[in-house]
Amino acid sequence: MSAAAEIRASSQVLLDFSITALTRLGVETVDAAVWADSIIDASLRGIDSHGILVLPIYAAILEAGGIKPHATVETLSDQGQTVLLDAGDGIGAVVASRAMELALERAGRFGLAFVAVRNSSHFGTAGYYAMKAVAKNMVGMALTNAGPQLSAWGGHSKVIGSNALGIATPGGEEFPLVFDIAMGASSAAKIFLAAQRGERIPTDWMRDKMGEPTDDPRAFFDGGILQPFGKHKGYGLGLIVDVLTGVLSGGLFSTRVGQFAARPQEPVGVCHSFAALEIERFIPIAEFNRRMDEMIRNVKASQPLEGVERIYLPGERGFLEREDRLKNGVPLHSKLVEDLRTLAKRLSIEPPC
Amino acid sequence: MSAAAEIRASSQVLLDFSITALTRLGVETVDAAVWADSIIDASLRGIDSHGILVLPIYAAILEAGGIKPHATVETLSDQGQTVLLDAGDGIGAVVASRAMELALERAGRFGLAFVAVRNSSHFGTAGYYAMKAVAKNMVGMALTNAGPQLSAWGGHSKVIGSNALGIATPGGEEFPLVFDIAMGASSAAKIFLAAQRGERIPTDWMRDKMGEPTDDPRAFFDGGILQPFGKHKGYGLGLIVDVLTGVLSGGLFSTRVGQFAARPQEPVGVCHSFAALEIERFIPIAEFNRRMDEMIRNVKASQPLEGVERIYLPGERGFLEREDRLKNGVPLHSKLVEDLRTLAKRLSIEPPC
Repeated sequence: MSAAAEIRASSQVLLDFSITALTRLGVETVDAAVWADSIIDASLRGIDSHGILVLPIYAAILEAGGIKPHATVETLSDQGQTVLLDAGDGIGAVVASRAMELALERAGRFGLAFVAVRNSSHFGTAGYYAMKAVAKNMVGMALTNAGPQLSAWGGHSKVIGSNALGIATPGGEEFPLVFDIAMGASSAAKIFLAAQRGERIPTDWMRDKMGEPTDDPRAFFDGGILQPFGKHKGYGLGLIVDVLTGVLSGGLFSTRVGQFAARPQEPVGVCHSFAALEIERFIPIAEFNRRMDEMIRNVKASQPLEGVERIYLPGERGFLEREDRLKNGVPLHSKLVEDLRTLAKRLSIEPPC
Repeated sequence: MSAAAEIRASSQVLLDFSITALTRLGVETVDAAVWADSIIDASLRGIDSHGILVLPIYAAILEAGGIKPHATVETLSDQGQTVLLDAGDGIGAVVASRAMELALERAGRFGLAFVAVRNSSHFGTAGYYAMKAVAKNMVGMALTNAGPQLSAWGGHSKVIGSNALGIATPGGEEFPLVFDIAMGASSAAKIFLAAQRGERIPTDWMRDKMGEPTDDPRAFFDGGILQPFGKHKGYGLGLIVDVLTGVLSGGLFSTRVGQFAARPQEPVGVCHSFAALEIERFIPIAEFNRRMDEMIRNVKASQPLEGVERIYLPGERGFLEREDRLKNGVPLHSKLVEDLRTLAKRLSIEPPC
């Protein structure tokens, strides 16, 4: 990012703008606040691909009817520790927040809980939901499937989404761990960016239409297929996430899941799962915190590779970025500024910048 | 493997030999049967690094005192859905089998369960325990930490074990999924083999003592450090497994865990966790089976890459190998045959071949 191409906007202003925009689009204020919080949290943590950048896309999907803002979440099964919800093609972030809070409440009563959700939509980052467990002294997990983007290991057809897995654990004096990954070796967004910039990409990110590894990001627009991260291991983990979300919930899985924003008028039928585990069922939380600090400091004391300034733990960059962006604002590219102004104009509301 | 260098032994003979050897080494017959079953299951599935190959190593550790065959497993906490056990430096495979069965029994009552174990020893393959869930119509998970072998992402010190994660789900007419990975981009065993054969290795497996990526397996014996699989993603997952085993259980974690077989007289203090989730809490098992078949067949219908004969699902090669080896025997290298004969002689028992 060149400094000339970006401005910075206050996260509070972006949050208010998002809430106003979503309510104008027919979302209830209380739901708009939850949804906007999940979006701006991604912007604050530097996960820009899931931040304010997606607001105009969500707006287009809401307008086209692919997300139903007044969907009723139906409880299909509630057996205490396990719950199955049908989101009715509603707002991913809203049902996901509710489902994670339900998992935390149930884990508080039973020690652990698992909540599955079908017929939902794109929920943003998995880490956002997993992280809700930290304040409750629990380990949290959030999973989601997604429209097919990755090939099987050895195959050359899009059969698995770049499904996501987020796991968060309390730290102590150190930051919590927030492990948040998608199953692709790269996101499509990074490949777009490399193509725009005329850069090459690592050869393990994609295969071209002939099935050959390529370092040319433009191959993506000509039949290229994203690869799972970590070879057969990311492939397998991607399948497992699909089983624990789409298959288990009775919802859509594999190639049946809709592609985010591809057909904005059609629900994507994404499925999620959320789990929580109460730490004090095993050891006192103060002891857990102390042990986490010891582990984290032990890892950080590693000899760094040449050119590496410090060793980061999962999620740590996000916490540091959040501190910076809360103070100095969220950087926005000129194209994004323009998109937000266009959205504001269409909705007859004040632009955020 | 050249045909000349190997013979095949019946898995039943290898199982009986293992039980006899372990009982001679002071293990109770009932425990020896459990332990041997976990070893021979790995041999049958083609996971030879965890198969009969390790029996002489386990024997050496038993003789040196690093595994205590008569350890009492202590229940430190039992709150129904969650249980914490102390294995007392006993036999990993025995306490792990018991802990997984406990998780399954509890998941049968409560829908899901989580059992953590501290002060244990090397338990073999994670998939073996996870797979016990399949017959109960559950999803099973087994985790273990291990002695430090991998660097942090960006670091050059051994701070994480090649911790293992196994997850198994029922299939339908198709095989169950058995996802079973360690966090290293490669095992040390594969690197030894490449060094023996004078082969090069992929450059993402290891960094040399200077911290540079290398394709020379011999660098392992001169300060080389194994890399996590999938870059920062495998690194993060490795840490999470350590949290859910070593940190959560109150046992050893990170650099405190002992290295397998490095000091056979000292307990390694490995920690495990086991979880189970009952599928019928969400959808009927017959529907789950049907949906799994649909997903698996969908993945298998992928266009294969050039030179790829078929697409495998996680664990599938193991099931096919098992069918073959049950019929045709387990292939043994001449060096392994020799090791087993040496062990037999030392214990005054019949060699298996």
